[in-house]
Amino acid sequence: MKQNGISLHPLDVAAGPEPELLCIFGTGDLGRSLGLRLLQSGYGVVYGSRRPNSCGPLPQGAQVMTHAEAAQSSNLIFICVHREHYELLTTMEHHLKGKVLVDLSNNLKKGMYPEANAVYMQRLVPSAAVVKGLNTLSAWALQNELLAGKQVFLCGESGEAKQAVAHLATKLGLTVLDKGSLSAARELEDFPLKLFPEWRLPLSIAVGLSAFFFFYLLIRDVIYAYVEKKNEISYRIMVALANKVVFPIVALVMLSLCYLPGAIAAFFQLYRGTKYRRFPNWLDRWMLCRKQMGLVALGFAVLHAIYTFIIPIRYSFRHKLISGVVDEVKNNKTTPSYFDNTEAWGTDSFISLGILGFFLFVLLGLTSLPSVGGSLSWREFNFIQSKLGHLTLFICTAHGYIYGWNKFLRPSTYKWYTPPGYMLCLIVPSVVLVLKLLLLLPCVDRALTRIRQGWERTQPKEMDEIKTTNL
Amino acid sequence: MKQNGISLHPLDVAAGPEPELLCIFGTGDLGRSLGLRLLQSGYGVVYGSRRPNSCGPLPQGAQVMTHAEAAQSSNLIFICVHREHYELLTTMEHHLKGKVLVDLSNNLKKGMYPEANAVYMQRLVPSAAVVKGLNTLSAWALQNELLAGKQVFLCGESGEAKQAVAHLATKLGLTVLDKGSLSAARELEDFPLKLFPEWRLPLSIAVGLSAFFFFYLLIRDVIYAYVEKKNEISYRIMVALANKVVFPIVALVMLSLCYLPGAIAAFFQLYRGTKYRRFPNWLDRWMLCRKQMGLVALGFAVLHAIYTFIIPIRYSFRHKLISGVVDEVKNNKTTPSYFDNTEAWGTDSFISLGILGFFLFVLLGLTSLPSVGGSLSWREFNFIQSKLGHLTLFICTAHGYIYGWNKFLRPSTYKWYTPPGYMLCLIVPSVVLVLKLLLLLPCVDRALTRIRQGWERTQPKEMDEIKTTNL
Amino acid sequence: MKQNGISLHPLDVAAGPEPELLCIFGTGDLGRSLGLRLLQSGYGVVYGSRRPNSCGPLPQGAQVMTHAEAAQSSNLIFICVHREHYELLTTMEHHLKGKVLVDLSNNLKKGMYPEANAVYMQRLVPSAAVVKGLNTLSAWALQNELLAGKQVFLCGESGEAKQAVAHLATKLGLTVLDKGSLSAARELEDFPLKLFPEWRLPLSIAVGLSAFFFFYLLIRDVIYAYVEKKNEISYRIMVALANKVVFPIVALVMLSLCYLPGAIAAFFQLYRGTKYRRFPNWLDRWMLCRKQMGLVALGFAVLHAIYTFIIPIRYSFRHKLISGVVDEVKNNKTTPSYFDNTEAWGTDSFISLGILGFFLFVLLGLTSLPSVGGSLSWREFNFIQSKLGHLTLFICTAHGYIYGWNKFLRPSTYKWYTPPGYMLCLIVPSVVLVLKLLLLLPCVDRALTRIRQGWERTQPKEMDEIKTTNL
Repeated sequence: MKQNGISLHPLDVAAGPEPELLCIFGTGDLGRSLGLRLLQSGYGVVYGSRRPNSCGPLPQGAQVMTHAEAAQSSNLIFICVHREHYELLTTMEHHLKGKVLVDLSNNLKKGMYPEANAVYMQRLVPSAAVVKGLNTLSAWALQNELLAGKQVFLCGESGEAKQAVAHLATKLGLTVLDKGSLSAARELEDFPLKLFPEWRLPLSIAVGLSAFFFFYLLIRDVIYAYVEKKNEISYRIMVALANKVVFPIVALVMLSLCYLPGAIAAFFQLYRGTKYRRFPNWLDRWMLCRKQMGLVALGFAVLHAIYTFIIPIRYSFRHKLISGVVDEVKNNKTTPSYFDNTEAWGTDSFISLGILGFFLFVLLGLTSLPSVGGSLSWREFNFIQSKLGHLTLFICTAHGYIYGWNKFLRPSTYKWYTPPGYMLCLIVPSVVLVLKLLLLLPCVDRALTRIRQGWERTQPKEMDEIKTTNL
Repeated sequence: MKQNGISLHPLDVAAGPEPELLCIFGTGDLGRSLGLRLLQSGYGVVYGSRRPNSCGPLPQGAQVMTHAEAAQSSNLIFICVHREHYELLTTMEHHLKGKVLVDLSNNLKKGMYPEANAVYMQRLVPSAAVVKGLNTLSAWALQNELLAGKQVFLCGESGEAKQAVAHLATKLGLTVLDKGSLSAARELEDFPLKLFPEWRLPLSIAVGLSAFFFFYLLIRDVIYAYVEKKNEISYRIMVALANKVVFPIVALVMLSLCYLPGAIAAFFQLYRGTKYRRFPNWLDRWMLCRKQMGLVALGFAVLHAIYTFIIPIRYSFRHKLISGVVDEVKNNKTTPSYFDNTEAWGTDSFISLGILGFFLFVLLGLTSLPSVGGSLSWREFNFIQSKLGHLTLFICTAHGYIYGWNKFLRPSTYKWYTPPGYMLCLIVPSVVLVLKLLLLLPCVDRALTRIRQGWERTQPKEMDEIKTTNL
Repeated sequence: MKQNGISLHPLDVAAGPEPELLCIFGTGDLGRSLGLRLLQSGYGVVYGSRRPNSCGPLPQGAQVMTHAEAAQSSNLIFICVHREHYELLTTMEHHLKGKVLVDLSNNLKKGMYPEANAVYMQRLVPSAAVVKGLNTLSAWALQNELLAGKQVFLCGESGEAKQAVAHLATKLGLTVLDKGSLSAARELEDFPLKLFPEWRLPLSIAVGLSAFFFFYLLIRDVIYAYVEKKNEISYRIMVALANKVVFPIVALVMLSLCYLPGAIAAFFQLYRGTKYRRFPNWLDRWMLCRKQMGLVALGFAVLHAIYTFIIPIRYSFRHKLISGVVDEVKNNKTTPSYFDNTEAWGTDSFISLGILGFFLFVLLGLTSLPSVGGSLSWREFNFIQSKLGHLTLFICTAHGYIYGWNKFLRPSTYKWYTPPGYMLCLIVPSVVLVLKLLLLLPCVDRALTRIRQGWERTQPKEMDEIKTTNL
């Protein structure tokens, strides 16, 4: 094909009607699904089974042989059997010499075995090139062609073997990431077992804050009313406590906790006069879970919004409205005909700021969707997460301040000498906003920008050293 | 470049100032857009046209020749002409010998022709290697660089030809999936014509359920009131019927229909004592559309939520409130001053459960976004879809039970001896939850886990056979 | 490995225990993160530094040398230094001969330098093959493995060099798009600096429309009330003006502006009798920002929905309700006991249409998420954006018409002889719907379909020319 015209792309694969054969050990769910998928992509598939004659239904077009026969038919063997059966491989080691063994196994829980499955396999068959990988694919995904663009990991000692597997995975529509040598196998085997590791810290903080504020407000609100005024208002626990206090408070505090580590890091850099020193571990860990922290905060904000929407259909709201009207009519008061313009402005501003803050918060959340965030340029992402994020924090904090606008100086606000919940929750956001304001002062901003471009205060002799790009 | 240091990657493409030439037959929208895209990626483009001198504006840098001349300039020819004009290819068969012909054509509807376009082309030019593919790209997407990571399909008899096309597609930023031989061409040609095939069953069920419950409740509510009490409450059709009954009922029933097939499948496996036998066809089909079923249910739940939010601004709600107050004032009743704590707890619990269930439901829906679901590990996905899903179903069912908590035993509930809608809709979810509870019993759970790990009751002799990993 | 059985995939990379070495100039954030990433993927990394002995902490396993020494160890050198230090490369030109230099640099703002960084580098070291690319990756993304499937761009004069870089990028899990020769370098360097270019026009239109309607309605509503009736209703600015008028009006107008250019384009094609002539520039630009226009409209619709939900908890709503009741009780009117069925039907239809329109609008918005839209077939996308889009527009327009159903003929509607806002905003959607209706007439539709299939009225002699597929 390369004789006439300009040469084509590299076409070094054996072409022709004979499809390339691949071998699969194991005829279970994963083995069958993988075989079906390989057949659909134009490969030939040979299964290795202990009992080739009674191994249940296999995909059309696949052959079944004994393990030893199957191993001879292909250079690439997918091992879809449990770790407990790996010893079987030692019995046919001479057939596996120089072959690529792809270990797709997973364990049921972490740390079940002292060494990774793939390392164990390599130890059993040292003459083969074991590649750990594709183990994040489920039989379900393979059968239903949900592979497009999915990232899979590979590791192994032989670069050649990894490349062969990577090439094949690419043909199945997967994106491959090479994780290096076989010592990464344990990490790969733990991937399908991980359960939201990066969400644990944010969720713990959320639960802790919620519990603290719930009991604080239970005491201030329900128990105070019961003790001091003999009022049974326990019904408020379900909706009023949750909506009025816990959800918005936790949402606001957690949103500000997203932006606090950035400010702290900036002050660290200013104080140290360099960006080339590592932050303390706690700060690093904090900064790495900002996205999850923000999403948890968004969840609480959504709940706050929904609880607000349903206020008017609550029994207690309607009861209060009706008894208010009845009282007024009986007492012949004229209050309702007087329209308090300040009150109207106040509540409407409060509501408007809340809606605007919520709207911006949802926008922030949308950009953390992988597919949306991935389509943003670095400057766009920065604009949204920093500028828009701080604006959201500012608006939500203002929403909180306006809520208490006329209550801060009223003594009745401080039941049992404790501040109300919304005051407590305004502390952290206010601190973050003040810190951010300090960082925006021209002199501070200039110093910080220079530091972030690589300038160092303490080592002026190295100022002319090569500095690096991209922030 | 390979002489000094360690050798680089395979660089077997002809480099240099001369860009590789590719040929495109057809100068319509698709041909032009494809040519523009190829030129942008550094290829040279030669168009083949019947009238090279009058074929309209083409991308800058492309050449136009007759078909025969153009065919000689490249080994790879994109055929962007309608099927009706394929016969033209027979006139220049000697120029096409050994070339790769990429058939990008689509039909206007399914089954227009007895054989697939690509098969027809291969029959016309047997000496060329026809590759069907890239036909899911639109001229619009090509022009606007919307290709990143998009999956395209290829099929064809020659592995070499497919690889050449796949290589090129990868350079355009596409993800390629090889669908095997040319017999898959019809499937590929039907891809751009498919219209939500996997949504049909869930949508039909939703429409059927909605229609049934709408008429059932129309009779029980509006017609009953008209016949028995001479009340004209037809205005309730628009909002009250939709909100109060049809949307939440259908949402709950469809959500439980998502989890019913899983439970049925588990009982099948328990009964048969093996996981190696296929489920009946209807169960397979049902299980494959669970995601769509859940999303339709989510849509109905969203509508239910919105309808609930706007209840207080409806005319009838305000009218009822006002006339209630007026009645009370006139009759000098004291009811409103009595605050019913049980009622308050009841309605607030009802509302809180609804909000929580809705929130969890939305979270479930978010994880079915391709980009979010793709970033979850198998265990995380399983946790969300199974644990969180059943929790959502439980909370939503409890929401329904609390709605009717004090109405189940009241005779007035059973108008014309029929149960109200919310009772009917609680049947399926309750069954699913009971089945799930049975499956969670330690003894049943243990048996099921063993079966799912490959154990078989009926064939104890094969128990030591190699079992497969990954569920 | 190719001796026994069927041959494997191309395995022409040097395998074995020795990992391939890659060189990085610059030890800043980007250099370190890139090095870490390359080490994780199994490469060896050699840093080139001016002061190899005092360049701060580097990833474990990397070596540090002088620039000249490092350059000799690899054929591929990543240049992670600022443009100001490029001159350093001239001092070691003989070491860089034939090497691939990957320029990852970005500038702080557009147009800082007369020529692109990569062009400048190529001019300084003409004997090396400069490849511009990967500059859209941030140090942050590299460190946190956020690369899966991310699209990166490459450009350069040497195809061989680009392929080597592309191969490497693919191994890091990136999707590569070749943008051609080095003349595209400036475009690539501007990518990380772009700030929502395609959103500017829609946002400007939204701001313009909002400002116009806000002041128009401020005059008609608040100032009119103040001047003519001495009513101080300025509190309405915060919520009532925003909700009642500006948000829904702008949402509806912008939604119809999404569909207007399509209709105009169809009439252009009908008038010209061909689809082969370019549309005017303004129409092209308009059509390219339809998606953004629709999303901005969706944002306004969401705000409108939220503002509607919170109407009943506003002070003025409750005040009006209470004073209404009190008035009625005092005057002993019987109005509230009369239930106006027409009014109930009217408001409920109005609300239902709004909810339905909003729901469909959100569905439309969901399909413009990259990961959702990417999984739709061409026909599905077309169905949603065209059929569902026009249905949404129709329902939202009907929502507007029903709002004013009994007000159109009332003289009090036309304060100061100006039409109310909702009337103004119905003009554009009505025009779009009428145009669409005209296009759906069988005779017009047939003509248009023929034109879109390539038929030309003015050049009947070319009717038998080869026509192209895919729209």
